[in-house]
Amino acid sequence: MADAERKLTDGRTRIEFETDPSRYRHWKLKIDGDIATLLMDVDEKGALFEGYELKLNSYDLGVDIELADAIERIRFEHPQVRVILLRSGKPRVFCAGANIRMLAGSTHAHKVNFCKFTNETRNGLEDASAASDLKTICVINGTAAGGGYELALAADHIMLVDDGSSAVSLPELPLLAVLPGTGGLTRVTDKRKVRRDLADVFCTTEEGVKGKRAVDWRLVDEVVPGSRLDATVTQRAKEFAARARRPADAKGIKLEPLERTRTATGADYSTLSVAIADRLATLTLRGPEAPPPASAAAMVEQGAQFWPLRLARELDNAILDLRVNELDTAAVIFKSSGDPEQVIAYDRFLDSHRDHWLAREIRALWKRVLKRVDLTSRTLVALIEPGSCFAGTLAELVFATDRSYMLTPSLPSPASGGGLGRGEGDNKPPAGLALADVNFGAYPMSNGLSRLASRFLADPSDLDRAKAEQGKMLDAEAAAALGLVTFALDDIDWDDEVRVFLEERASFSPDGLTGLEANLRFGGPETMESKIFARLTAWQNWIFQRPNAVGEEGALRRYGSGQKPVYDTKRV
Amino acid sequence: MADAERKLTDGRTRIEFETDPSRYRHWKLKIDGDIATLLMDVDEKGALFEGYELKLNSYDLGVDIELADAIERIRFEHPQVRVILLRSGKPRVFCAGANIRMLAGSTHAHKVNFCKFTNETRNGLEDASAASDLKTICVINGTAAGGGYELALAADHIMLVDDGSSAVSLPELPLLAVLPGTGGLTRVTDKRKVRRDLADVFCTTEEGVKGKRAVDWRLVDEVVPGSRLDATVTQRAKEFAARARRPADAKGIKLEPLERTRTATGADYSTLSVAIADRLATLTLRGPEAPPPASAAAMVEQGAQFWPLRLARELDNAILDLRVNELDTAAVIFKSSGDPEQVIAYDRFLDSHRDHWLAREIRALWKRVLKRVDLTSRTLVALIEPGSCFAGTLAELVFATDRSYMLTPSLPSPASGGGLGRGEGDNKPPAGLALADVNFGAYPMSNGLSRLASRFLADPSDLDRAKAEQGKMLDAEAAAALGLVTFALDDIDWDDEVRVFLEERASFSPDGLTGLEANLRFGGPETMESKIFARLTAWQNWIFQRPNAVGEEGALRRYGSGQKPVYDTKRV
Repeated sequence: MADAERKLTDGRTRIEFETDPSRYRHWKLKIDGDIATLLMDVDEKGALFEGYELKLNSYDLGVDIELADAIERIRFEHPQVRVILLRSGKPRVFCAGANIRMLAGSTHAHKVNFCKFTNETRNGLEDASAASDLKTICVINGTAAGGGYELALAADHIMLVDDGSSAVSLPELPLLAVLPGTGGLTRVTDKRKVRRDLADVFCTTEEGVKGKRAVDWRLVDEVVPGSRLDATVTQRAKEFAARARRPADAKGIKLEPLERTRTATGADYSTLSVAIADRLATLTLRGPEAPPPASAAAMVEQGAQFWPLRLARELDNAILDLRVNELDTAAVIFKSSGDPEQVIAYDRFLDSHRDHWLAREIRALWKRVLKRVDLTSRTLVALIEPGSCFAGTLAELVFATDRSYMLTPSLPSPASGGGLGRGEGDNKPPAGLALADVNFGAYPMSNGLSRLASRFLADPSDLDRAKAEQGKMLDAEAAAALGLVTFALDDIDWDDEVRVFLEERASFSPDGLTGLEANLRFGGPETMESKIFARLTAWQNWIFQRPNAVGEEGALRRYGSGQKPVYDTKRV
Repeated sequence: MADAERKLTDGRTRIEFETDPSRYRHWKLKIDGDIATLLMDVDEKGALFEGYELKLNSYDLGVDIELADAIERIRFEHPQVRVILLRSGKPRVFCAGANIRMLAGSTHAHKVNFCKFTNETRNGLEDASAASDLKTICVINGTAAGGGYELALAADHIMLVDDGSSAVSLPELPLLAVLPGTGGLTRVTDKRKVRRDLADVFCTTEEGVKGKRAVDWRLVDEVVPGSRLDATVTQRAKEFAARARRPADAKGIKLEPLERTRTATGADYSTLSVAIADRLATLTLRGPEAPPPASAAAMVEQGAQFWPLRLARELDNAILDLRVNELDTAAVIFKSSGDPEQVIAYDRFLDSHRDHWLAREIRALWKRVLKRVDLTSRTLVALIEPGSCFAGTLAELVFATDRSYMLTPSLPSPASGGGLGRGEGDNKPPAGLALADVNFGAYPMSNGLSRLASRFLADPSDLDRAKAEQGKMLDAEAAAALGLVTFALDDIDWDDEVRVFLEERASFSPDGLTGLEANLRFGGPETMESKIFARLTAWQNWIFQRPNAVGEEGALRRYGSGQKPVYDTKRV
């Protein structure tokens, strides 16, 4: 059945998100001066789960994990690269899209998680273009179908060979009764701006569109005769590289393997710990142990050990791990420990080097990781306790949560007991929250607003009031008065209030919470990116529950069986 | 089972959308000068379906059909009204929201249709405020729970009695594992602009919020002691009335019963016909039979017989009828017959009287009806043939469709055959399309753009080119060259192309088409209104398929049974 758990082909029980080029099975990354070539050459036998083969450059989550890794490595390890050429290593096919047997056999949760990560990876390509001026040219020599064309849509420039057969298509609806849900429909209307009726024709035409019509309909940027393909690709790459404002002589840093130890209750990373119990995952982030380096060169020297980068990578890995491997987790609780002044010092360091390529990449990575947090379908909670360091960049996690609880300072009392990380006789500094410049625009959410602007939609003067307190260490009452935290509680109420809340949360319908949080987290405007996760994804998730797609006689299950799907003809 | 069809209590087989105050069972409409009071006093025994009672002012589609009718009548029959007071006729309860047993027992399709219509009615209240300066004050004396508070959220001003028990709440998630999906979550964040973490607390607190906290959290506009309630309501109504720019001495028109005859294949109205066959509904709209009246006074004299008003009301009824009573219909095909010059003449007449209250109401009604078309989950097609009158307002229907086909002029030929309304020796004028001022802003879609602006997102100069052709009768080739229609076909291809398209469309997954069209129709920006139908509704529809809500052990089914729901604890 579709909702039964399936076996990973490598015998592991958990999906791992960490990889490196030496382990790639599906992609070849070649760097040649300022041009990187990402060659998609999927290993048919390299599927993540048992039960399907990745024919015709079709992909599963495993293929996309490698792509996401490759894009990160180009940004950090090869800063001189200005253009990514996205090509196929197979003859006559660019990419056949998400593997259909994988989709047909996946649990609902896996389908949803797979699409979410794939969407984030596509957005990552666009972020490389927007934030780092690293441009992607997609070269389609053969067919780009479904998710294959959706991958192309994330590029800055799409080239299609004009050979009478190479075509782009979104055949999901006619073939599988599902949507081009990895950004496809939204990028067709909002990025390529294809006229809506032509988009309708395109998305209902199995064989897709080729040649000049593909340009006329804005589906690709140019068609190129096969005989001139290589020359034109080289020329186009040079043109894009010439326009890019990327550092010419920068030396990259090595994204070393993460330091992670799995424990009985979760995992320990170098900068954070994950502890899972009672359907709750507590993530404790640790502040820096040393002041920032003295110079940008020293930052480059630290490389992947540089605290903000280390924490961003480890947090990203921890969140992804929770998403796909800890489905039963109801809530993620963020705690922190360390010196908030040091966190702010690192933020100031990055501010002062904002034009340095590595500082820019680290800020852009934090932006993506925080967006990943926003889009995580777990209740997000921050507990701000004595000894924590929710300041600047780390304060963003507080603003990303659905609720935050902050402890008011109180006189030490032998009767106050322990609980939630506060031991008796604790001499940690009282819980504080501090804002910095980064909280006012450096990390926009997918709706285009900073988390504080999203928080203070009602009255922009609340944002000004918060800005005026920048740099100060705010206690619970001050933070609550500014609207920065949900509840300021004293020692007496803390344990009970927090416990009751978490128990109650875990008692609610997990689906209901996903829908609730997906609405309440994104007030205000929508962007193409937020539309992909809201309008498109929510409809796709609905369809992923409908018998016409996933039922025994539905199109996803019957694809390739020789039997036609049987549809309930009622329109809903 | 939830997906079995259920019986209407009155023994009919179709849900009827037409009603009038003499038939209301749930609302009392009282007009007193410039104040209308809409008293919700739901008849427990007046449920639309068998199997539940409408206790505590809970509602079903039947209750909302009356509310929608009442709002329309206030706008057309009582133009002097400036303020609607929305109140409860029951003690200690304002409204308990959508009836839970009704939801638990409804088919998925009915739940979706019910929510869509309810959303449109709530939007109708806001449209009355924005387009006609007709303000709604909601007076909550008792509890406003779930859909009850969602109704209040549509008002311009919410008053809550401060009696220690009256409260507003959105308990859907904790009680029922579904969302406050009738605009609730979106209006809380985007209209009331409640801070997101407070919104989280509010939406997970069964008993809701009362008193001063309800004001502090922006959930209501004021709290009033019970002893001062009537005096304060009267005062507030006077203040709102004094600010409203509504006509003081206008005489309303009577919204007479629609002229409709059910036929073997559909229905005949005075201005349109519906013919259903092979899962296709053909709506043929008829142009005016006489020129516009000579003056605004003559328009008022014609009242509900005035052609643009008659057609708008009949089209609205036909679309609603198709939505809920003809679920098996795959596509709605719009055709028209009449003199396009006359259609334009009516548009010019309404333009020239744009400051007259009735002209304004008719334009606003067309705007709402066209939005209803946009939100109809059927493939929408326009066939523009000889003798049609797709001009001005009627051309909007062409731009609302997913695809349009237009016949190129050809020499009459005995061999050309019949088909699709073109008889041999036909001497109808060739197919023409004409634009007017109304096509460039009078009828915004829910995304805030005109249909042409939504169509020409890629290049605004396309909009200018179209504007330059305003008033001309465009043949198929000219219309296609301007991008106004999808296909211009000649006599030889027409029958086959159209037939193949419609057959193909009917062969696709109905759910897949709903998702596809919900994405392709709404390119570009989102507004609060479009977010309600996209982000919120799509998530709610997903949840309406999830076992945690609708399964045998789910919260909707178990509510009131004394048994707790059993949840699959996996977060998706």
